[in-house]
Amino acid sequence: MQNFDLVIRGGTVVTAADSFECDVAIRDGRIAALGNGLAGDRIIDAKGLLVMPGGVDSHCHIEQLEADGSIHEETFTTAGISAFAGGTTTVIPFAPQFKGQPIREKLAEYRRRAALSPIDYSFHQIITDPDAEGLAEELPEIVASGIRSLKVFLTYDPLHLDDRQYLKVLTAAKKLGAIITIHCENYEAIRWRSEALLKAGLPGPASHALSRPKVVEREATYRAIALSELVDQPIHIFHVSCGEVAEEITRAKRRGVKITAETCPQYMVLGAGDMDRPGFEGAKFMCSPSPRAAGDASDAEGLWAAITAGTLDIISSDHCGYSIEGNRGKKINGADADFTRIPNGVPGLAARMAITFSEGVSAGRIDASDFVRLTATNPAKRFGLYPRKGLIAPGADADIVLWDPGRQVTLTNQLMQHAIDYTPYEGLKVTGWPVMTIARGKLVMEDGKVSATAGAGEFLPASLSPAMKPRGVVPDDFDAAAFS
Amino acid sequence: MQNFDLVIRGGTVVTAADSFECDVAIRDGRIAALGNGLAGDRIIDAKGLLVMPGGVDSHCHIEQLEADGSIHEETFTTAGISAFAGGTTTVIPFAPQFKGQPIREKLAEYRRRAALSPIDYSFHQIITDPDAEGLAEELPEIVASGIRSLKVFLTYDPLHLDDRQYLKVLTAAKKLGAIITIHCENYEAIRWRSEALLKAGLPGPASHALSRPKVVEREATYRAIALSELVDQPIHIFHVSCGEVAEEITRAKRRGVKITAETCPQYMVLGAGDMDRPGFEGAKFMCSPSPRAAGDASDAEGLWAAITAGTLDIISSDHCGYSIEGNRGKKINGADADFTRIPNGVPGLAARMAITFSEGVSAGRIDASDFVRLTATNPAKRFGLYPRKGLIAPGADADIVLWDPGRQVTLTNQLMQHAIDYTPYEGLKVTGWPVMTIARGKLVMEDGKVSATAGAGEFLPASLSPAMKPRGVVPDDFDAAAFS
Amino acid sequence: MQNFDLVIRGGTVVTAADSFECDVAIRDGRIAALGNGLAGDRIIDAKGLLVMPGGVDSHCHIEQLEADGSIHEETFTTAGISAFAGGTTTVIPFAPQFKGQPIREKLAEYRRRAALSPIDYSFHQIITDPDAEGLAEELPEIVASGIRSLKVFLTYDPLHLDDRQYLKVLTAAKKLGAIITIHCENYEAIRWRSEALLKAGLPGPASHALSRPKVVEREATYRAIALSELVDQPIHIFHVSCGEVAEEITRAKRRGVKITAETCPQYMVLGAGDMDRPGFEGAKFMCSPSPRAAGDASDAEGLWAAITAGTLDIISSDHCGYSIEGNRGKKINGADADFTRIPNGVPGLAARMAITFSEGVSAGRIDASDFVRLTATNPAKRFGLYPRKGLIAPGADADIVLWDPGRQVTLTNQLMQHAIDYTPYEGLKVTGWPVMTIARGKLVMEDGKVSATAGAGEFLPASLSPAMKPRGVVPDDFDAAAFS
Amino acid sequence: MQNFDLVIRGGTVVTAADSFECDVAIRDGRIAALGNGLAGDRIIDAKGLLVMPGGVDSHCHIEQLEADGSIHEETFTTAGISAFAGGTTTVIPFAPQFKGQPIREKLAEYRRRAALSPIDYSFHQIITDPDAEGLAEELPEIVASGIRSLKVFLTYDPLHLDDRQYLKVLTAAKKLGAIITIHCENYEAIRWRSEALLKAGLPGPASHALSRPKVVEREATYRAIALSELVDQPIHIFHVSCGEVAEEITRAKRRGVKITAETCPQYMVLGAGDMDRPGFEGAKFMCSPSPRAAGDASDAEGLWAAITAGTLDIISSDHCGYSIEGNRGKKINGADADFTRIPNGVPGLAARMAITFSEGVSAGRIDASDFVRLTATNPAKRFGLYPRKGLIAPGADADIVLWDPGRQVTLTNQLMQHAIDYTPYEGLKVTGWPVMTIARGKLVMEDGKVSATAGAGEFLPASLSPAMKPRGVVPDDFDAAAFS
Repeated sequence: MQNFDLVIRGGTVVTAADSFECDVAIRDGRIAALGNGLAGDRIIDAKGLLVMPGGVDSHCHIEQLEADGSIHEETFTTAGISAFAGGTTTVIPFAPQFKGQPIREKLAEYRRRAALSPIDYSFHQIITDPDAEGLAEELPEIVASGIRSLKVFLTYDPLHLDDRQYLKVLTAAKKLGAIITIHCENYEAIRWRSEALLKAGLPGPASHALSRPKVVEREATYRAIALSELVDQPIHIFHVSCGEVAEEITRAKRRGVKITAETCPQYMVLGAGDMDRPGFEGAKFMCSPSPRAAGDASDAEGLWAAITAGTLDIISSDHCGYSIEGNRGKKINGADADFTRIPNGVPGLAARMAITFSEGVSAGRIDASDFVRLTATNPAKRFGLYPRKGLIAPGADADIVLWDPGRQVTLTNQLMQHAIDYTPYEGLKVTGWPVMTIARGKLVMEDGKVSATAGAGEFLPASLSPAMKPRGVVPDDFDAAAFS
Repeated sequence: MQNFDLVIRGGTVVTAADSFECDVAIRDGRIAALGNGLAGDRIIDAKGLLVMPGGVDSHCHIEQLEADGSIHEETFTTAGISAFAGGTTTVIPFAPQFKGQPIREKLAEYRRRAALSPIDYSFHQIITDPDAEGLAEELPEIVASGIRSLKVFLTYDPLHLDDRQYLKVLTAAKKLGAIITIHCENYEAIRWRSEALLKAGLPGPASHALSRPKVVEREATYRAIALSELVDQPIHIFHVSCGEVAEEITRAKRRGVKITAETCPQYMVLGAGDMDRPGFEGAKFMCSPSPRAAGDASDAEGLWAAITAGTLDIISSDHCGYSIEGNRGKKINGADADFTRIPNGVPGLAARMAITFSEGVSAGRIDASDFVRLTATNPAKRFGLYPRKGLIAPGADADIVLWDPGRQVTLTNQLMQHAIDYTPYEGLKVTGWPVMTIARGKLVMEDGKVSATAGAGEFLPASLSPAMKPRGVVPDDFDAAAFS
Repeated sequence: MQNFDLVIRGGTVVTAADSFECDVAIRDGRIAALGNGLAGDRIIDAKGLLVMPGGVDSHCHIEQLEADGSIHEETFTTAGISAFAGGTTTVIPFAPQFKGQPIREKLAEYRRRAALSPIDYSFHQIITDPDAEGLAEELPEIVASGIRSLKVFLTYDPLHLDDRQYLKVLTAAKKLGAIITIHCENYEAIRWRSEALLKAGLPGPASHALSRPKVVEREATYRAIALSELVDQPIHIFHVSCGEVAEEITRAKRRGVKITAETCPQYMVLGAGDMDRPGFEGAKFMCSPSPRAAGDASDAEGLWAAITAGTLDIISSDHCGYSIEGNRGKKINGADADFTRIPNGVPGLAARMAITFSEGVSAGRIDASDFVRLTATNPAKRFGLYPRKGLIAPGADADIVLWDPGRQVTLTNQLMQHAIDYTPYEGLKVTGWPVMTIARGKLVMEDGKVSATAGAGEFLPASLSPAMKPRGVVPDDFDAAAFS
Repeated sequence: MQNFDLVIRGGTVVTAADSFECDVAIRDGRIAALGNGLAGDRIIDAKGLLVMPGGVDSHCHIEQLEADGSIHEETFTTAGISAFAGGTTTVIPFAPQFKGQPIREKLAEYRRRAALSPIDYSFHQIITDPDAEGLAEELPEIVASGIRSLKVFLTYDPLHLDDRQYLKVLTAAKKLGAIITIHCENYEAIRWRSEALLKAGLPGPASHALSRPKVVEREATYRAIALSELVDQPIHIFHVSCGEVAEEITRAKRRGVKITAETCPQYMVLGAGDMDRPGFEGAKFMCSPSPRAAGDASDAEGLWAAITAGTLDIISSDHCGYSIEGNRGKKINGADADFTRIPNGVPGLAARMAITFSEGVSAGRIDASDFVRLTATNPAKRFGLYPRKGLIAPGADADIVLWDPGRQVTLTNQLMQHAIDYTPYEGLKVTGWPVMTIARGKLVMEDGKVSATAGAGEFLPASLSPAMKPRGVVPDDFDAAAFS
């Protein structure tokens, strides 16, 4: 057995099921061997550290093209740096579709932009207009190119789909073998409440939470599930914000629905009350669905219960980079814009792994294998990147994060290393921190110092991994034969 | 104590809670006294019979005006006869609204027609277009006139409301103190499946059930509930067809939602399989939601479990009179019309009480007080007719049915005494049968012989009965203060 | 119609389902007529008052003989006075069995004592020793005499039955058509915790709650239900203390188990914290199961949710009269006796109706018909006294309470009019108060002034009322045929 | 890197989370490396095979000493052969305690017997008499010796513990850091029903199922859980037989109870009807709890639902070797002994893995990682043998099974290679079969040919693995402080 390029020596390897001490050897960008006393050109001492698969952030907005011609500030370049800083080695951002337009051209542009990515990436293809001309021809081609998850919005102007459009996308996905991912909130309900809040003279950021209470997300989630049952098409629910919504997903899983779901760190540590800070400050915490708990921890506990019960499969960042200042920032409509005119979303690429580890593992709610499962293995399996990504095993890409489980860190925006001018987690104390990130065998972060090479990232075509293929039962009232 | 007009002697009086033997005395159309040895101008021997409140059928379509200019065959006159034949003494049919048109004129016409009714009646006001000009002025006036329940459809062309329109009606009702009643099925899902079934070459009546499986009703029910929670407005769910839908209502009641619900006899004794009969025969059983069970009794049992658990509060007929033949009948679009072009609905005014008693009381699933509660007391309370209707007590209208609990009858269309040329219950054997009906002190049916006087029926203005006022809790995520 | 003895004029009659204004006429101790303008020898003006069935307290300890030869302080005479003061007109206390002894002699003595009762009564027969010689012969005779409910304890020395003994009683009851009523707490668990608390140096009354946490009651309740399912024998669960226990009963009802259950006012308004008062004061609140909530209202809310959902059928007092002082009082083992040596139980005969009305009806959680159902109709039905007791209808006993729904009263021991030297509800403010009690046509309480005649009370033989007969399903894994 | 002793080349390694192709290298009885192109003294071609951790059977009776002086037929020697034949490399049998006797001497004898084991083993220590003299001194010593799980029976004469005794064992275990494993059935209920069945003239094996219906197991499971909640002591429920029992465990997990549970293959493929075969034949299928489903698959589906939902953590064999013939066999009390006198239990050491794989993985209910988790990783973690056993990773014992997922085999007793003269699975067809077993690096089975060396097995002292340490919440009504 010839020499290895790199050997990580003496750490505790953690997989989604197991935990054991051994060396990890890397050659040609892949994990070549697990063993003891392995020799290599370079040796990294991992004593006392956890050796885990690099994070797979399956929900993050990067350099996203918007219908108004603007582009998200966070470029593939800056996002890659931020991801590496936080221990993440794969991202799945979103390719756009604009209403009434075909996808091909925009997708090509998006792929051109992504070609500069320092970090490996796959895509979700947003579908905002299933009726656009030519889509029927484009979609098979898009899926064949390795983009196997389609994202739909049930809210937001002008993104939201109505039930007919959603059914159309479900049906198309079923034929093509694609997954549907969904932002679940009721469009009209939010519109109705927003108008009422503005009419009531409550334009401040705090109204964001009031405009979209839990029931708005719960309803849309139930509907998204029900219509997927009708079509018998697998779905993935994005950014579940509270236990009440998770409960509907638990029930669906019990009925045999082919469904997975995720939550995000903002729902563990932020609250509706954060948006009630004076002035424009509250806008920093504004994302959709809204952070819930106001002054107590009840929603976080509901989410953790759903995580440990296996209802929530993935923890993503929903990284959405809007600075406060700047020409694409939260103040784009002025510092006194009402809450409906402030861009939604919070950055979290770099913070996702650390907050999840701290609130989960360090707080005793989950173990390190659960952490790996939620942040790397499951996202890779669910979105067809496994077994190239999401595990530590010979043959897999050498995407590895070395984690110091005892390191205590206070989050600052500087630590995030993103393009955004703030973090909603400023001042949050976490226990557990990534000290080294390796991407396909290259050391891309060491003690916070990132070295990212533009264009080093590869596009990862997705397959439908049988390992994560949802096991389901066709709803008993669905007569598939009638349509064959 | 002067003499009474009429004394029902020696029967067993049954109320929604109690059961006891005594005489019932009537004077001037009202119950004047309960006691023993009461004397009157006329004595009816009720020995061995149950003396119960006349039925209140809170969901039936009578002489309904349709947007296409047609009118339902069942007139107030024929409906009154059929109702009396079956032991029902109060009906609540539907006043129409046509899209884009104000209500006033059509309501006036409907009231003119109703003026010929031999049976007491109240109205639900259908709202198909909450955006119609002038509605904001009309609605307070309509509610003030004693029509306090508004009916909305979440499916059917061109009746269905979208979420925005439904929220608008909920909000209006909240301000006016009206109840919202809802037909819950998902419009787009039915449309999608219907198109697929037609494309698959399955145009027969059997496809009706396949076009709207349970999940389609379950989704719309959940959404109707969720949006009512958002507004904190009481609702009533019409014609629950199966245990799965009832389960969502059970959960809503547990959350404190202000909700009541009903089912109908067609969901107890008919099945999806009935629509698979040869030729046009299946059309006789076509109603929406669809009868469910095909070949087994599971859906009926789910409904009875929901009835005994208190989830379902009312049993109505959803009487919808389309003959097979005739110019407004099921064959209006031809005997080979596809299932989407056959009018929906089955007649049940006369059958409702007998089927409910037989399947419920005679079958040992409920007791006679439950029967009274479900068929008379609760509908009267829920729709503001109590304590004038729905009970046997001094001061209440003398609406009484004498019931022979042991009488075995095989249902025929002749027994129904309606204007319709068939009954879906032809041949059904029931145990328990109404032998005499008294309406406001007048004997209107005796041993099947009905004497109905055109115009004898009165309009019953509805109040919001505190006794049936749903006890609820404002959803905890609803900040009412924000809108005050 | 001849003149009546007494007419209650102008009140609002409330039954378990209905509410209406009319007069109530009484003749020869029975309700003779309901009507308007009724004439009688005596007229009582009930304007503004509720006219409801006198309370039926189906769980109260009166003049109970104990194995140590002592007798509860509250005699039938004093209990009758207290009951009338509180609006209750029927009591169901307990006839004793002593271990190893036949029942006949003690029952005869108990009946002799009861012969002095001023209030109508029925009996539960306690079974502490199903293995006692001669029981097989005695039980049929006891049941035939009209005592159709057998009470068993799953805890307390020396009263508790083990599983074998409980199965024996279930089987005997099934043969005889009797109901089993049960005190559910785990005997060994309480013993284990009590020993631990004493060993830990915590002998004060506050340890009572710690010695029997909810799980102790929840386990015994589940076991009592499960073994009754095995035998397919109807049971009634006494004094449910919290929502967690009620949840097991809800589940049993959903499975079709033949079960009813009750709670008591002490679980609505007292808490575990009350036992932590200084000195011996805490002993005043000591009963079993223990009051739960400490400092918050969560347990009361759980109980009210179970009441409105129909899980809890009855509210009884579990009146248990131990004075603080006196030779049969709480201090019988000294003022410094440890918590295991202080008699358990709190008095509540006079307070039951008022606390239930105030916390229930006045607080808006239930309506007046629910109150009648819970405090009179259901107990009468469940224990075979209906339709003689528990309703207002011609032919029923004229047991009536006139209730002022708006009267605000602060509870004091004097108002209780019992033999006990304290009330645990001292100082509790209630809204709603009984202003007149009529027992079989006799006015026995007016404005707090009670006139009770020793021996005026009658023994009420119980029948199994079909109206309350639990509707159940034989557990599907029980092969009854195997034992026939 | 020097040469390896053995290299398994080209197979698909399956862990409880991951699945990937690579070689597995072994040196000195341990897994030395995972990689590709590894060289070794011996190469095994695993192309097309799954390479999985050897099975850990955490519930099997081997050479067990009984109070009557008899010893189970299956010796450590024959059990080792059977286990290797079926792909299992670790067993956890039971060390006995006899009532009234100290443990030390019997344990020593049992360890002497186990010293001849060809297969690695750990022990559960049965506790039948927590009151035996000296136990308080013995237990710490036993736990310190590496036996950290105590087994209690809630049924069986003379093994069963009452609640007091069970609480005593729970408390002792809490102090010592041991796990409690439990056989949950209600002792008295079974006794009562058995007597009734015999009295009814139904002595045949079919009565076994009737004597212990589901509710008997469900009750005891609930009680076992509840009392463990009281003490806050981790427990493991043995051999869950149906979905109804699993439901109580699901609820407990949701409450935060520290609980794990298992089921066994006999509950997946055998039914109560099997015991109804003519003559003594039914006795072959007699085990406790009883196989449930009679003629349908409903119970198996309930169990699989609980497995996929994560409620059931482990699949064990509960191997219990009684031959039909022979002086310790099922006919020990004669071929016409009534069902209460026929030894309970069925053999399954060799069949466990194959039935689980076939019914689980081949049938599409679980994936191969789930199989590894249920049959190897979880049992090793739960009983403190991890990370030495239950995983494929460098440093772990080289316990490996090579599995042909497509091999179709019809089970026969000969294939079982145990000491027992029958298998209850005779004729069962399975898909998936072990083709090679390696125990600590030694090839102990190849194509059904077993080579087992007496004494080659090692005793495995158990630790409390943090990875499997149940995450729980102290029940909220337990005031631990009161006892500190």
